Amino acid sequence: MATTREESLHLHRKNQGKLEVKSKVPVRNAKDLSLAYSPGVAEPCKDIFDHPKKVYEYTMKGNMVAVVTDGTAVLGLGNIGPAAALPVMEGKAVLFKSFAGVDAFPICLDTTDVDKIVETVKLLEPTFGGVNLEDIAAPNCFEIEERLKKETNIPIFHDDQHGTAIVTLAGLVNALKIIDKDLSEIKVVANGAGAAGIAIIKLLLRMGVKDIIMCDSKGIIYEGRPFGMNAIKEQVARSTNRNRVEGNLADAMKDADVFVGVSVAGALTKEMIQTMHKDPIIFAMANPDPEIMPEDAKAAGAKVIGTGRSDFANQVNNVLAFPGIFRGALDVYATHINEEMKLAAVYAIADLITEEELHADYVIPAPFDPRVAPAVAAAVAKAAMETGVARKQVNPEEVAENTRKLTMIDRE
Amino acid sequence: MATTREESLHLHRKNQGKLEVKSKVPVRNAKDLSLAYSPGVAEPCKDIFDHPKKVYEYTMKGNMVAVVTDGTAVLGLGNIGPAAALPVMEGKAVLFKSFAGVDAFPICLDTTDVDKIVETVKLLEPTFGGVNLEDIAAPNCFEIEERLKKETNIPIFHDDQHGTAIVTLAGLVNALKIIDKDLSEIKVVANGAGAAGIAIIKLLLRMGVKDIIMCDSKGIIYEGRPFGMNAIKEQVARSTNRNRVEGNLADAMKDADVFVGVSVAGALTKEMIQTMHKDPIIFAMANPDPEIMPEDAKAAGAKVIGTGRSDFANQVNNVLAFPGIFRGALDVYATHINEEMKLAAVYAIADLITEEELHADYVIPAPFDPRVAPAVAAAVAKAAMETGVARKQVNPEEVAENTRKLTMIDRE
Repeated sequence: MATTREESLHLHRKNQGKLEVKSKVPVRNAKDLSLAYSPGVAEPCKDIFDHPKKVYEYTMKGNMVAVVTDGTAVLGLGNIGPAAALPVMEGKAVLFKSFAGVDAFPICLDTTDVDKIVETVKLLEPTFGGVNLEDIAAPNCFEIEERLKKETNIPIFHDDQHGTAIVTLAGLVNALKIIDKDLSEIKVVANGAGAAGIAIIKLLLRMGVKDIIMCDSKGIIYEGRPFGMNAIKEQVARSTNRNRVEGNLADAMKDADVFVGVSVAGALTKEMIQTMHKDPIIFAMANPDPEIMPEDAKAAGAKVIGTGRSDFANQVNNVLAFPGIFRGALDVYATHINEEMKLAAVYAIADLITEEELHADYVIPAPFDPRVAPAVAAAVAKAAMETGVARKQVNPEEVAENTRKLTMIDRE
Repeated sequence: MATTREESLHLHRKNQGKLEVKSKVPVRNAKDLSLAYSPGVAEPCKDIFDHPKKVYEYTMKGNMVAVVTDGTAVLGLGNIGPAAALPVMEGKAVLFKSFAGVDAFPICLDTTDVDKIVETVKLLEPTFGGVNLEDIAAPNCFEIEERLKKETNIPIFHDDQHGTAIVTLAGLVNALKIIDKDLSEIKVVANGAGAAGIAIIKLLLRMGVKDIIMCDSKGIIYEGRPFGMNAIKEQVARSTNRNRVEGNLADAMKDADVFVGVSVAGALTKEMIQTMHKDPIIFAMANPDPEIMPEDAKAAGAKVIGTGRSDFANQVNNVLAFPGIFRGALDVYATHINEEMKLAAVYAIADLITEEELHADYVIPAPFDPRVAPAVAAAVAKAAMETGVARKQVNPEEVAENTRKLTMIDRE
């Protein structure tokens, strides 16, 4: 870890950060200048003024995503503020580019005020083809995303919520194939009511899971719980725990089929797993240390185990989702990333693993699997066109092929 | 011109704009990922949190300028809005990078409200090492710049004002050498009271010019003029036209030594020039057509003539100033671009032309003269250190050498 620390600091210091803005056209002499700048540049300006949609043709907007944060929930570091969050946002932009050729630019905002964040992003809309909200603490993140989705005409996507939810659900879909159960017949316990936890619950409900109990650090969340509630938790409580079950996590876990943790290390015990239904599925995604270590979960009878870590099987890594999702959304000039596009991403990721390949230690593709972003991009573009949020019609196969060309990751 | 139109549209369409965001570090595999992103990226984050100044070391901020516009005064096109302005802002960013290795990113804001623009730029401060205000109409541009200079700790520079003023003054300093006069003894008439005109007047005053008359489309500006005034014009009137001369441009021009036009084609006549002092100096910078064509000015007796056009001698082109100014400011982590730094830029540009080289058709270096940005950067960095707005001490010669390495323009 000391090595990593020094290596990482060196990497960041060496080049004064990780991003540069590069010209795609040369401006070496007067002729170049007359086309890329004055007087030639007036031509695309006039054309965009007359035909606003052409901004996608003539400018960077169509391939440019803002990575927006207020620095309130950065990695496991918490509220470190917008300046200290910049290395993470640059890193996110690097991933956008490396995995799917999406240009992304950090926007670290010096405020935690919801109104100001919403207002600022709206004012930035002319410049960006999409917005990836990043590392904004719950519950503010929910309101910011909801309002921006209503008040802008570009895709808004809070990756900490939906990226995690999409990859988790992809893993769950495949894990259920192994134990031969349907989403509609399982009981899921979700532990952790932050951005990711809430998004996972919503996606589970949308995908047909009927029996869900959500817990936070104070235990089972139920409607009207007199402590530690907020508007979002109330909403979740109403749509999940209909019998108003009370108690702690251990109570919730009895007879559950699936545990989904986005909470803290050690939250889940062997004993709890032993009270679950046969062949339980455990997604223990606390960072850096999972709710239970995979070996302990396995010893307690877990059938499929996923974590957030690269050194264990079945890594739930958002990089499987967000590059391809934005690639697909941008390629059709999408106005939104809707639920159908998210579901398309879930199944695109899950379906990359064939029936033959599928086993308990391989329900989620590897982060550097080069097939992922092209498959996700194509599926998302298709779903966007089918649901009327595409401003441009494309051939999904061409989206996939284009994404393959743009990917800069190694083929493993 | 039709060719230029097609060529320019093609250039912009070919690559979907002119800018891309590029990673300076590879992320091809898990090892790369662990350094540039999680978990390694936490290290620079923590270090910046503990030592805020280190954001300049570990992130893109130290080399990143926002090119901010509201799209109200774009080229000669006027108020075309933020989306249609994007090609110009991308072009500006291309010039920043090509001439001085400065990363610049367009921020096209969907508002013309002064308060909102100021607020937004302030909220963006964590991300950027400087702000170039661009194509924002007068008089809003003055208030926006003044407030941002007070309320932020990064350089704020409205190029339409100061870039034009700096290059014009560089040309004037050299032109006066030819007619052997001092700034303190000349009479200047400035025509046009927009962003550039006001900035030129202010810089003339600061450099010691005592006799200045400003005109706008309604004639000479004098204190208390009962028509077509605003707060800035009142301020200029008080500090220039102390005798409260009234009348039109022709009245103003009598016995003037210098005409500076940032107004409209045809505003200046041969007859007016003929009423000027001996060997008059004419800067006719209206775009695309100057206030008087150079051949007509010469026929009327003008000694030195400058315009905004590349096809005439002595082109006043902002690209001589802004890349080097920001290069120098960024290299010392400047908190401001102050008046001393602007003056340093004026003389750095002027002094590139030696006494032997100097003649009436060569008082301003060519836009692609590769010596310009290095000289300006070094002079600006030096002035910043001398006036206490530098957060880092550097060797000006190294700044020049560094700038030379970063320049991507052809050597002519």
